[in-house]
Amino acid sequence: MSASATAAYGRLKARFARIAILGEAQAMLHWDAAAVMPPGGAAARGEQLATLSGLAHELMTAPGMAADLAEAEAGGDWEGANLALMRHAHARAVALPTELVEASARANAACETVWREARAQSDFGRVAPYLAEVVRLQRGTAAALSAATGLAPYDALMEGYQRGIGAADVEPIFAAYEAFLAEALPRAEERQARQPAPVLPQGPFPVATQQALCREMSARAGLDFEHARLDESLHPFCGGTPTDVRITTRYTPEAFAQALLGVLHETGHALYERGLPPAYAHQPVGEAAGMAAHESQSLIVEMQASRSDPFLRFLGPKLHAAFGGEAAAYAPENLARLWRRVERGFIRTEADELTYPAHVILRFRLERALIGGDLAVADLPAAWNDGFTRLLGLTPPDDARGCLQDIHWHDGAFGYFPSYTLGAMAAAQLMRAARIAVPGLDEALARGELAPLTGWLRQHVHSQGSRLGFQDLMRAATGKPLDPADFTAHLTERYL
Amino acid sequence: MSASATAAYGRLKARFARIAILGEAQAMLHWDAAAVMPPGGAAARGEQLATLSGLAHELMTAPGMAADLAEAEAGGDWEGANLALMRHAHARAVALPTELVEASARANAACETVWREARAQSDFGRVAPYLAEVVRLQRGTAAALSAATGLAPYDALMEGYQRGIGAADVEPIFAAYEAFLAEALPRAEERQARQPAPVLPQGPFPVATQQALCREMSARAGLDFEHARLDESLHPFCGGTPTDVRITTRYTPEAFAQALLGVLHETGHALYERGLPPAYAHQPVGEAAGMAAHESQSLIVEMQASRSDPFLRFLGPKLHAAFGGEAAAYAPENLARLWRRVERGFIRTEADELTYPAHVILRFRLERALIGGDLAVADLPAAWNDGFTRLLGLTPPDDARGCLQDIHWHDGAFGYFPSYTLGAMAAAQLMRAARIAVPGLDEALARGELAPLTGWLRQHVHSQGSRLGFQDLMRAATGKPLDPADFTAHLTERYL
Repeated sequence: MSASATAAYGRLKARFARIAILGEAQAMLHWDAAAVMPPGGAAARGEQLATLSGLAHELMTAPGMAADLAEAEAGGDWEGANLALMRHAHARAVALPTELVEASARANAACETVWREARAQSDFGRVAPYLAEVVRLQRGTAAALSAATGLAPYDALMEGYQRGIGAADVEPIFAAYEAFLAEALPRAEERQARQPAPVLPQGPFPVATQQALCREMSARAGLDFEHARLDESLHPFCGGTPTDVRITTRYTPEAFAQALLGVLHETGHALYERGLPPAYAHQPVGEAAGMAAHESQSLIVEMQASRSDPFLRFLGPKLHAAFGGEAAAYAPENLARLWRRVERGFIRTEADELTYPAHVILRFRLERALIGGDLAVADLPAAWNDGFTRLLGLTPPDDARGCLQDIHWHDGAFGYFPSYTLGAMAAAQLMRAARIAVPGLDEALARGELAPLTGWLRQHVHSQGSRLGFQDLMRAATGKPLDPADFTAHLTERYL
Repeated sequence: MSASATAAYGRLKARFARIAILGEAQAMLHWDAAAVMPPGGAAARGEQLATLSGLAHELMTAPGMAADLAEAEAGGDWEGANLALMRHAHARAVALPTELVEASARANAACETVWREARAQSDFGRVAPYLAEVVRLQRGTAAALSAATGLAPYDALMEGYQRGIGAADVEPIFAAYEAFLAEALPRAEERQARQPAPVLPQGPFPVATQQALCREMSARAGLDFEHARLDESLHPFCGGTPTDVRITTRYTPEAFAQALLGVLHETGHALYERGLPPAYAHQPVGEAAGMAAHESQSLIVEMQASRSDPFLRFLGPKLHAAFGGEAAAYAPENLARLWRRVERGFIRTEADELTYPAHVILRFRLERALIGGDLAVADLPAAWNDGFTRLLGLTPPDDARGCLQDIHWHDGAFGYFPSYTLGAMAAAQLMRAARIAVPGLDEALARGELAPLTGWLRQHVHSQGSRLGFQDLMRAATGKPLDPADFTAHLTERYL
């Protein structure tokens, strides 16, 4: 390795660190906009985010970058992977003109703001022109990335969220799941109908009690609040940076489960960020391995661990002590019937594990059609309702419970939805591997201890950063690439 | 005016807007650090702020900027002033190497973080090495700016906070005030001793009640919470951006006056930001006219209006209704005796109007010596205590009540302190002019209405942006440049 190749790599590390730090500033401004910003700040915030996006893009495409990337060499697993990721990020970035990047950021911010009101009023017409502009710019982005990478336009967007998985990989997985669901859903419903009806805990559930409980459970799952915050926002999310993670949830005094399980979900994301390798902070290889990998971490905490029989045995008495009322409602078997209830519903974020992939399959097909130009934004509500009816046999009564429910498209995120179901599948596979590798994992869950599980995840997933691609990460952690059979086995055991 | 001169000016406006927007992002990250950030985020935040500072500096000193500034022409008061301010900002920026700007931002952030603990423990030794590094970099900054502008090093730092006023202007004003105070302070104390002792309202004063009251009074003074937030931080401040102003205060259940009057103070700052000309948003001419001008706006709301006899007649019954207890404690005359009490004390932010300038005079002399190299950081505590004793006849019992009390130096702000007293003087002068120009101003205050005053300020100060220099702004608003006689007349009337 020549001195100048090493020097070029050193310069690249400094350049990429600056870009990553701009991304951290953006992450904080996003959190602020969602959690605390007064409404009158929205326009200025859009300008701020657009300007930071534009600057990051300029740094990525600055003179000298291509020459350094061509010349640089780096030795070892980590540094070699880092350099490959730099080249990959650069290739995608140079495909996009600065004006398109800034216009997208601006259109996304404007659309997201209007969407918050449009959803509240179930008024798709209000947000439609903003969404049309977002889609128009996303099509332009997809076309530019497609030309640069040789991927299909929609695949080029997907790659921005999870490298190495395209529509051709997802389609058969989703088609197989659709077939599985058509058979499994009626059976699960039938089995459920034979069980006693779950008892609903009686509220009100004071928000302050919920907040304290959510914070305690998040800390119990391993989140250290010296490096994290828990706040409120309309759409729960995990933002911030690895040393300052910001998770949010929504509270209502009428119910506590959505907030609590939501916090456990976001805690899974937060633990991933906290566990990333500090030695590679601000470098591409130090980032999470993609959105499907990320979702696997939230779902393994929320769905696999927190809703498991052993953990519910710990949680039930704790909830009863916090909220009082009928003990029967907090019995572990009752919580299992409540929180593992299969129910065809309109809202993705409230969906059970079994029907959730149907929500994702719908969105995958629609967003692919939107990007492909086969579906106009004006026709989205009707296409949504048709597709939803075909998949789950129900027709949304309004757009708030239909195509307006998610922030994602209104924030410019196309190609992201498949990650949810790929993540759910990965979570089942990782849980199975962890149970084999970690003796006493379920016994620990029964004592409310998630450390054996999250410690294993830190070692096999979090601390790996982006050194491995998604499939190699799964292979290293579980001995095989993504295998949907572990997910359907999990569902079969839990629901059939 | 040639087409190319106009085009150059157009390019400059776009460049300066980007720089201003980066400044907005920094302002938000500063607010976050002070109001909500978990402690573990401090190191990353320092990197973020340093990177944004460095990028802003690079944009300011980018190729083509000097040529555009040389070529550009702009017609009219506002655009002409804008171009002059651009040239001024550029001249200061090119004097500073990027490495110095980034190192300063990093050192300031590190020092500020350590200072928060050092102050709590009154441990100057803990922060001293960090402060020494801050001072070292500030000396470098002052030397570079001095070489570029021809100003003395300390004056070059002062200019960064308030253009057009240097140590030579301030010195005679401060010397005259010192002489005035030596005579006035004993007389005021003597007069006060002859009056009945004030009755202290009895707490506790629930924090939630205080929060609601502070918010209501801030709104009454004209702040619209569609474009503003009120939060808590160790050191109250006004941050954010003109369409998203963030003010903070500190609450304690033992007392309410500090929080309430602090919020009114920060509201004065916030109204200035809210009232800046939107047509020149993100342009130098659209910014506030300087820190002395800014402080005049906080002090006219807090000191001149809110502590006036007519306003206390409105406020007294309102406070009694909120907190209950003895009515006598909330009688307007009693509040006047409490809140206009002259008392030699150690803490600047708790000082009365009469002795406050002594705190500023001390800091002005010390920071000038620190920057001039005539005082070492290690000798600061002793020099502070000597100077304080000479000015106010008291010796601080510890550094928490001495040289550790203020955030400013620990955050790299040298040359800022004189603005407080220049602002107090300007506030008295503006209040006198407003009383003459606006009929019924005191009658409105007695009804709790600040709109006649703040409306006049919006017209004569806020909406003027930086079109005029400080002295010209005072001249346009009051018919004369800064005249300390209005301040001493106000003090004489109120205290003697």
